[in-house]
Amino acid sequence: MKQSLRLLKEKIPINKYSLYVPKCGVFPKGFKVGSIASGVKKNGNLDLGIIVNTNTKTPSSASAVFTTNRFKAAPVLQSQRVLQETKGSNINSIVVNSGCANSITGEIGLKDAKSMCDIVNKQLKSDKPSTLVMSTGVIGQKLQMDKIEKGLVEIFENKKILGDDFEHWLNVAKSICTTDTFPKLVTNKFRLSSTGQEYTLTGIAKGAGMICPNMATLLGFILTDLQITPRALKKMLSNATMRSFNCISVDGDMSTNDTITMIANGAVETNKPVDIENAQVFNEVQENVTSFAQQLAQLVVRDGEGSTKFVTVKVLNSLNFNDAKTIAETISNSNLVKTALYGEDANWGRILCAIGYSKLNDIKSLKPEKLNVSFVATDGSEPKELKLLINGVPNLDLDEKRASQILALPDLEILVDLGTGSEKCQFWTCDLSHEYVTINGDYRS
Amino acid sequence: MKQSLRLLKEKIPINKYSLYVPKCGVFPKGFKVGSIASGVKKNGNLDLGIIVNTNTKTPSSASAVFTTNRFKAAPVLQSQRVLQETKGSNINSIVVNSGCANSITGEIGLKDAKSMCDIVNKQLKSDKPSTLVMSTGVIGQKLQMDKIEKGLVEIFENKKILGDDFEHWLNVAKSICTTDTFPKLVTNKFRLSSTGQEYTLTGIAKGAGMICPNMATLLGFILTDLQITPRALKKMLSNATMRSFNCISVDGDMSTNDTITMIANGAVETNKPVDIENAQVFNEVQENVTSFAQQLAQLVVRDGEGSTKFVTVKVLNSLNFNDAKTIAETISNSNLVKTALYGEDANWGRILCAIGYSKLNDIKSLKPEKLNVSFVATDGSEPKELKLLINGVPNLDLDEKRASQILALPDLEILVDLGTGSEKCQFWTCDLSHEYVTINGDYRS
Repeated sequence: MKQSLRLLKEKIPINKYSLYVPKCGVFPKGFKVGSIASGVKKNGNLDLGIIVNTNTKTPSSASAVFTTNRFKAAPVLQSQRVLQETKGSNINSIVVNSGCANSITGEIGLKDAKSMCDIVNKQLKSDKPSTLVMSTGVIGQKLQMDKIEKGLVEIFENKKILGDDFEHWLNVAKSICTTDTFPKLVTNKFRLSSTGQEYTLTGIAKGAGMICPNMATLLGFILTDLQITPRALKKMLSNATMRSFNCISVDGDMSTNDTITMIANGAVETNKPVDIENAQVFNEVQENVTSFAQQLAQLVVRDGEGSTKFVTVKVLNSLNFNDAKTIAETISNSNLVKTALYGEDANWGRILCAIGYSKLNDIKSLKPEKLNVSFVATDGSEPKELKLLINGVPNLDLDEKRASQILALPDLEILVDLGTGSEKCQFWTCDLSHEYVTINGDYRS
Repeated sequence: MKQSLRLLKEKIPINKYSLYVPKCGVFPKGFKVGSIASGVKKNGNLDLGIIVNTNTKTPSSASAVFTTNRFKAAPVLQSQRVLQETKGSNINSIVVNSGCANSITGEIGLKDAKSMCDIVNKQLKSDKPSTLVMSTGVIGQKLQMDKIEKGLVEIFENKKILGDDFEHWLNVAKSICTTDTFPKLVTNKFRLSSTGQEYTLTGIAKGAGMICPNMATLLGFILTDLQITPRALKKMLSNATMRSFNCISVDGDMSTNDTITMIANGAVETNKPVDIENAQVFNEVQENVTSFAQQLAQLVVRDGEGSTKFVTVKVLNSLNFNDAKTIAETISNSNLVKTALYGEDANWGRILCAIGYSKLNDIKSLKPEKLNVSFVATDGSEPKELKLLINGVPNLDLDEKRASQILALPDLEILVDLGTGSEKCQFWTCDLSHEYVTINGDYRS
């Protein structure tokens, strides 16, 4: 083994839990949450969670974005059906289990996913479909419905389990983890400049990178006490997901269960719900939700299996958004770029190579003679930007020492300026390490 | 580290050199080849090779397939120009160097690539463009033309260097290696059933998987003593490349220098050249060239960086060829499938997941309820085929012991039957190992 990798292996690993898990938080009004160890996870960890809207003054809205994988798991199909039937109105709960993905389980799987919703609806005394369901874990295995049912009943019957304290929320975040090394919980208060109204966004996610028979399900949900119409919520969540959860790369694989859900319960007092018609308020909330979703999505990358680095790939001045995104995605998914980052190797040739084989919609988006590529430091050190390629020509005076300094940072940025337009896209990715191969090569034992 | 990986690490590595490098061979008539250590490679290994057509009785034909990367290296642009000018007629030599890719080197690089051709043309006393050039190695660095020129002159002046013995051919194969662990040389005699004529195909390649600043260039050339018209050769090589070098995956990256070249010098006696008009002969030769190119391409996968397994991915009964290819390619490029293969893990969920997110042209190509997926043993052991998914339903009686046996083989097959049509495609891939990360994370030291 060569020196640089030896050094890497001797590096003290980052304590991600203490860095990225909050120690307290304020949460949106009108929600109660709870979780339990149902026994589906053999190790006795929390594996069943529930979010309940308790606000009855205003109707709630819900929306979700689902995997485009052709093999959609049963909970995905069930939640799609509920959203279709209800048009996103009066959804009052989300039930989520980990340890079994209820995927490729045929008719029984569909029945089980529906049962999970029915049990919760019954507990909530709702005679209409009002529950969404999400699952993550082993695929091709039947859900142990006896354990799930018993667990759900207990969540509702034991008054200590369902609540709205910090610990309740953190435990729900824990209950959806599979290979995650830390629970992903983000919460933020916002004040609308247009109305002065204060509201809260809370997000919970699990990541990514797959361990099998887990399918690396990416699950996320965002909850708010703002009142938002179903159509506005749908537009907002789709926009936010496109710029957050769809802009992260751990290993380029996409699961059968990926789902991002959002509920707005309207528990904060308001004159009228946020809607598309009031563009000013809509845009402000949409911007808040997008940057919030990005925070949550970034935590998934930070917990990428075996990752030691968090890398932002910014593509600027593109002829169009799609090609900017394709280039950012191609760089972010390249194994060669990812291993070079792991090896802290100023290997700009691999970045260039990935740009060159990106499958662009419009070849005019990329003009080699206009291309600039840099590494950017994110720790405040100077010079912040280190140019690698200047107008298509390699920087022959490259300061290798500075390159090594930037690459040694746990957070850094790759900046690609296409110089062909004014659109931009950013992606978040991580490196590809020995540990990734170990985790993914060896799930059984 | 868990047990299965521990076992893997303790496995005695395969001696690929003794398995895959021939010890003798018969080569096409009318070619002389030579190679030398020019000094471009710092370690003193062979790094400059040449193929010369010595047959003057019949005009030779040449064709080539180049990288589609937007950043094409200077030798690619130069060879493209030569083929355009000559329309593929009377190409009498290929010059190839390793150690420096002459890529992203601007105007100087183009001049150097042209100079390499000019020097060879001068030595061959040709006043027309008749030489193709290929380079592989470090990118963004200028060719050391003094060393290249001196080397080329010596190849022609030192009578021992240029020849047609087995050693001469093997040395040329060695001279284009970069991170390869063995030289790739294949040679085969064929007899046309239609005419009884005997001819020879010899192929040399280098692979794949990238080590930097190398760009993992894939270079290959095929030489034959059959007479083939330029247009027939072009069609044949393009067909063969599509089914061979374009159907292999090591890490999904594509370099700035990738080139496959073919020369037919017509040195074997013949009535008339093989042409498209005589479909019977054309088809027979095309079939020979395709299966020959597949042999050569497979060697590149066998030498995939850090690979321990050679895996054939067969997609059968597809509605169309393109979607069969997309699915085969998506499975072959999935890091999760590749790490599972490394870990010898019967993880069919990952295969299914990759099929599900393949970007198909026609969604009707994939009908989950018609899908069958199997592992296939290639060592003659029984049962040869182990069904994982039967008409979209997981095989609940999966014989895990047999799955482990098949996955322990160094050669195995993943069979995907789409059941939606009659087209098929096969891909060859390798696993993703710790060694791949080590090689690619750490090129400098």
